[in-house]
Amino acid sequence: MTTRDYHLTLKDVGGHQPEYLETIFSLANGHFGVRANDPISGNPISGTLINGFYETAPITYGEGGFGYAKLHQTIVNLADLRHLSISTLNGHPFTTSKRLAADLNLNTGVLTEQYQASSQQGETIQLTVESVIGQNRDSFWAIRYTLAADNYAGPLVVSKSIAVPAAAEEIASADPRKTRMAGIPDCKTDFTAPNTQRYQIQTKASQLAVTLHLQMATPGGSLLNYRVDLSDGQPHALDYQAYVGVVSRHNTIDPIVPVLAASLEELEDDNREFWGKIWRHSEVSVGGNPELDLAIHYNIFQLNQSAGRDGRTDIPAKGLSGSGYEGHYLWDTEMYMLPYFIYTHPQMARQLLQYRYQVLPQARDRAREMGVAHGALFAWRTINGEEASAYYPAGTAQYHIDADIAYAVGKYYDVTGDWDFISQCGFEMVLETARFWVDFGAWHQLDAKTKRFEFLTVTGPDEYTALVNNNYYTNRMAKHNLELVVKLAAELAKHDPNRLMAFNVTPADLEHFQDIADHIYLPYSQQYQINAQDDSFLSKPRWPEDRMAPDNFPLLLHYHPLTIYRYQIAKQADTMLADYLFPQDLTHDQLEREYDYYEQVTTHDSSLSRSIFSILAARLGDTEKAYRYFMDTARMDLVDLQKNTADGLHLANLGGSWLALVAGFSGFYVDHGVVHISNHLPQELTALTYRLTVGKSVLQVDLKPDETHVQLISGPSVHIDVNGQAETLMAVTAPTD
Amino acid sequence: MTTRDYHLTLKDVGGHQPEYLETIFSLANGHFGVRANDPISGNPISGTLINGFYETAPITYGEGGFGYAKLHQTIVNLADLRHLSISTLNGHPFTTSKRLAADLNLNTGVLTEQYQASSQQGETIQLTVESVIGQNRDSFWAIRYTLAADNYAGPLVVSKSIAVPAAAEEIASADPRKTRMAGIPDCKTDFTAPNTQRYQIQTKASQLAVTLHLQMATPGGSLLNYRVDLSDGQPHALDYQAYVGVVSRHNTIDPIVPVLAASLEELEDDNREFWGKIWRHSEVSVGGNPELDLAIHYNIFQLNQSAGRDGRTDIPAKGLSGSGYEGHYLWDTEMYMLPYFIYTHPQMARQLLQYRYQVLPQARDRAREMGVAHGALFAWRTINGEEASAYYPAGTAQYHIDADIAYAVGKYYDVTGDWDFISQCGFEMVLETARFWVDFGAWHQLDAKTKRFEFLTVTGPDEYTALVNNNYYTNRMAKHNLELVVKLAAELAKHDPNRLMAFNVTPADLEHFQDIADHIYLPYSQQYQINAQDDSFLSKPRWPEDRMAPDNFPLLLHYHPLTIYRYQIAKQADTMLADYLFPQDLTHDQLEREYDYYEQVTTHDSSLSRSIFSILAARLGDTEKAYRYFMDTARMDLVDLQKNTADGLHLANLGGSWLALVAGFSGFYVDHGVVHISNHLPQELTALTYRLTVGKSVLQVDLKPDETHVQLISGPSVHIDVNGQAETLMAVTAPTD
Repeated sequence: MTTRDYHLTLKDVGGHQPEYLETIFSLANGHFGVRANDPISGNPISGTLINGFYETAPITYGEGGFGYAKLHQTIVNLADLRHLSISTLNGHPFTTSKRLAADLNLNTGVLTEQYQASSQQGETIQLTVESVIGQNRDSFWAIRYTLAADNYAGPLVVSKSIAVPAAAEEIASADPRKTRMAGIPDCKTDFTAPNTQRYQIQTKASQLAVTLHLQMATPGGSLLNYRVDLSDGQPHALDYQAYVGVVSRHNTIDPIVPVLAASLEELEDDNREFWGKIWRHSEVSVGGNPELDLAIHYNIFQLNQSAGRDGRTDIPAKGLSGSGYEGHYLWDTEMYMLPYFIYTHPQMARQLLQYRYQVLPQARDRAREMGVAHGALFAWRTINGEEASAYYPAGTAQYHIDADIAYAVGKYYDVTGDWDFISQCGFEMVLETARFWVDFGAWHQLDAKTKRFEFLTVTGPDEYTALVNNNYYTNRMAKHNLELVVKLAAELAKHDPNRLMAFNVTPADLEHFQDIADHIYLPYSQQYQINAQDDSFLSKPRWPEDRMAPDNFPLLLHYHPLTIYRYQIAKQADTMLADYLFPQDLTHDQLEREYDYYEQVTTHDSSLSRSIFSILAARLGDTEKAYRYFMDTARMDLVDLQKNTADGLHLANLGGSWLALVAGFSGFYVDHGVVHISNHLPQELTALTYRLTVGKSVLQVDLKPDETHVQLISGPSVHIDVNGQAETLMAVTAPTD
Repeated sequence: MTTRDYHLTLKDVGGHQPEYLETIFSLANGHFGVRANDPISGNPISGTLINGFYETAPITYGEGGFGYAKLHQTIVNLADLRHLSISTLNGHPFTTSKRLAADLNLNTGVLTEQYQASSQQGETIQLTVESVIGQNRDSFWAIRYTLAADNYAGPLVVSKSIAVPAAAEEIASADPRKTRMAGIPDCKTDFTAPNTQRYQIQTKASQLAVTLHLQMATPGGSLLNYRVDLSDGQPHALDYQAYVGVVSRHNTIDPIVPVLAASLEELEDDNREFWGKIWRHSEVSVGGNPELDLAIHYNIFQLNQSAGRDGRTDIPAKGLSGSGYEGHYLWDTEMYMLPYFIYTHPQMARQLLQYRYQVLPQARDRAREMGVAHGALFAWRTINGEEASAYYPAGTAQYHIDADIAYAVGKYYDVTGDWDFISQCGFEMVLETARFWVDFGAWHQLDAKTKRFEFLTVTGPDEYTALVNNNYYTNRMAKHNLELVVKLAAELAKHDPNRLMAFNVTPADLEHFQDIADHIYLPYSQQYQINAQDDSFLSKPRWPEDRMAPDNFPLLLHYHPLTIYRYQIAKQADTMLADYLFPQDLTHDQLEREYDYYEQVTTHDSSLSRSIFSILAARLGDTEKAYRYFMDTARMDLVDLQKNTADGLHLANLGGSWLALVAGFSGFYVDHGVVHISNHLPQELTALTYRLTVGKSVLQVDLKPDETHVQLISGPSVHIDVNGQAETLMAVTAPTD
């Protein structure tokens, strides 16, 4: 399998508003991100974001309450790295520009753009901008501006420096998906050489610090007032490089970071290697629709760009492509993005889970604050591990995040067999979340003989239904969490019994966990013969027909929560998400009934919905519907389906689009070590090929309309089940590719 | 029946902290209130409050949403009217003082206080302060300071003026019962004569204006630098009078209000007449416990002081005795205070209901905003009629306020027969609230034959249980609302059929109302054989035993709402309140079961709870328990039971204490025109006598342990039922008293 060069260009995207393009063509490497701001006119939203570099501010509530999240955590918009000041020698600045072309090479991460810049006096020049962010060397970024004559062909003065940001006005918005503006940090800047600027930033409240360096790499260059003369008719290339340091606490910052510059070409070469490895392990190729094939490559590219890789950062809901959701980490990582990493780059998956482990102390404190005596409750929205959701009914009440994280730990272990991680971190996370469920839930004695274990006043994934009892998804996931701790404890007892005692886990505790897991109530409707989303969802009235017109959506922007909550209307997959995760729980017929039912009451106002509906439609054999949902998923940002890509990419959906291909069209799942594949290729696609890793075995799956082929690329033997036929792929000694 | 003089003095009250005493000895007349601030040292919370004079400010939410209340409405703390500046001639100001005595005459409203004032140099003088607020002439207030030598007996310089308030710091509090500080209004002041100061105040955002006048009435007096010489050994009396204008919109204020001064003695005489009339119509006398007898007089006194009388104002939750709850009007008026006025001063009751009528347009708009196409939804917390509750789960979600107001209209009409009000205002209020329920609720089809009408995602009176389905109280009250509109419409059709058509009410509408009323679901537990507070309350776990220690209460200050909501724990009477209102709904046995059940799960963290539990205990014959709850009710503020009387009196509880005597110990209620009385006098009391008015008949009820006597004081014949014996009291031609 060879990987061809993929390029995203202006003609591949659905909108040309500047903020939209800035998101789409943003570059990132998990450590920091640079939006594709116009280099001439700039943008008040400067567009450089460092993962985990946030400012805090007290949350003001109209009416506060005990235990409410105390501080906003907001990713800081740093100085614009892409801006270049160009003037004619007689002082006419070039102030506007037109983006004529853009090309993002998905095999190198090099972004090449073509602009025409204009002065107020009508003088124009041609500007080509090539930029690249280091993937292996994740502190580096390089940009090359190539200036060429247009109607102006004279001398120019060029300056580039990192400016201290002006105080931006607070953006007041009733849209929770947007960001707040973080407070302006303290900035100190100096020129350590004519071609080098140092820029030190300290946030005031959160006490974080980071240093940036900018240098002009063109020989003899100077950042300020550099002369270029276009009268020779030649294009002139100017090279700049930036270094973005690591985030540290105040006063612990290394005083002077040596600037280890890397040129555009060096980074490009490095990146080619980096992306080559990425694509080798996670290549996906879709036959019959080049546009879609490109889209899925783009999604995987951005997913990889966005993921924190240092064990101290996670994936913000908008990646590093925009400051929507304030740069917060949500459950999106574990449930929508992590599967991709687990199956293709397990080391990155481990780093993401490691982030959760290092905020476990904050999660323990939060459980106490929430009136639960044992265990840990992870924050719904956070950067530093503390709860930052200022609306608890669709925030802290989504307790399921605990079970989501535990599920991800379990899935990671299932697929990778990485016992070291489980022993170091994973078991403790699963244990502490399990303990939370035990203390948080309650026995409900139905009659003298029957009791069940319930979870009350919770919000499930569906944020259009809040503070309900026995959300199916939550209960099912909690059950899994408890079963998982019992399973892992048994393994730990074999490996290292002392360690189990160190966690203060007794055999009686494990019996207790199992007993509760066995008794967790899973609501089921006898009337409809389906799992019920919660105790009351199915008996609520349906959303009124006269409010179905498209301009009523997303409902959250047009109706009070009380209005939305009293109807049987879902923002996204909820019980459906549980059905996707636990295929063994229900028959094909029941799944069909549930799908039909919940599809009718789901608005897909969340970007976390369509991918799941696509997967389950494929599982049900309705490949036409699966394809429709998948198309919205795969190209959600490229066509700006939700009309807010300007705020940043929908990362969960990017992960979801990969899931839809793999778990949907190819019916992939692993159960008891057996890899299951079923061919659900929709007729619109002529072929689907992808690679993933299970344990140490790299598999390649090739689907054609009437052909299903699974190949072991490297690693030990694998038991597979293809379209219901069991088979064993025998180990090979060398990769076939 | 003669009324003796009642006085409240320092020894009758439970605490001596200044802010507590300021509340307890506050004077008010429905238009404005003056807290009993120390006249020498003053208080940053100035303590003059005008009913309905508020400032607005945008509500900031951590995370906002569609339809959230937009503006805080906060009663404005005006200039301190009681402050007096006294210095020795050589410039030693008297800066501290000690309150030695206080006496509030409940028959005149004259407050007499004794202070010793001290300078920093140790000079002391005696200061007697008499103050009174006009009841019939409600713009007037008078104060007399009598200065006498103590260790200092020389010349003094005395100044009194209304100062422009300094900006107070915002009080950040997670306690929703406290107030915000309103923004400082624009103030202009000038001296129109040496003895007269004019003080004009305009709020900035809410655009309200009011003018105060202060004058020194002592002949030859001057507000500034008035000389008094104590060396003659005589006390010197200084008289001041204030005029507090009516609240008007900016630019509509009368340019100069003639100051019609009234002396302390004139106001005292007027008030004696006013209070005499009040006591004649609402005298209550409790035998066997003088302390309790005084307490109930105090409660009735303060209830009367607090009620708006102009049809444009209501009763703030803390009266005009403090700025707790920001001076907002809540359902407390209709359900806890209005019964007292309906039965004793129906004209005042009408004015209070009139206030609601004049904010009906805002209530209509709010219903639209809340996604309900017809009818009106009254604001949960408001001054100007717009929603000001910044926490919708215990604010807007308490839709029951609509039915509460309708209930009060119906009760007012039942008792007074005031058709004029119903025809002018009342019917429209009942109609618009009924229309709200019709559109807000939903049919739930149980099977082919059975359907019921439900109200989902609501909060009942119990604020420790939020966003539930089918709150019994809400559903029962909505049913009453719908039955009431049908009943009143039938009367209106007889009186004035055109008017019914003008309201666009068709016979089909009325049938629809009746049909829904007949089908409203009233949750009932077969297991416990009691009415169920809502669909899920009874199956939740009980509040944990290990969190029952007193310092866990009130729970709202120690637990996150999510923690409280998931337990079966109530802040206050909820289903019990419905049981109290609709005695005919359930048998004695069922009431007993319900009482036993709900008493165990009620914290009484709300001041609206104990009075209802007292009434129902009496109804059940448990007079000992009734007495215990009553004692906490009757003396709640005097003993500072809730530890926050400093923020203002608990007005609903004041009304509740009257209800507990009348509806509890004497079992009073009116059903189909028959007055029911049952003797439930607890053994701790030797007698209970009270007066009230039904229709045009003034009744006096006298209870002794083995005696029940009902007397018709004036008005037409009345059918009564005393301890189960029917009787008719024949009309008399002249009052017997």
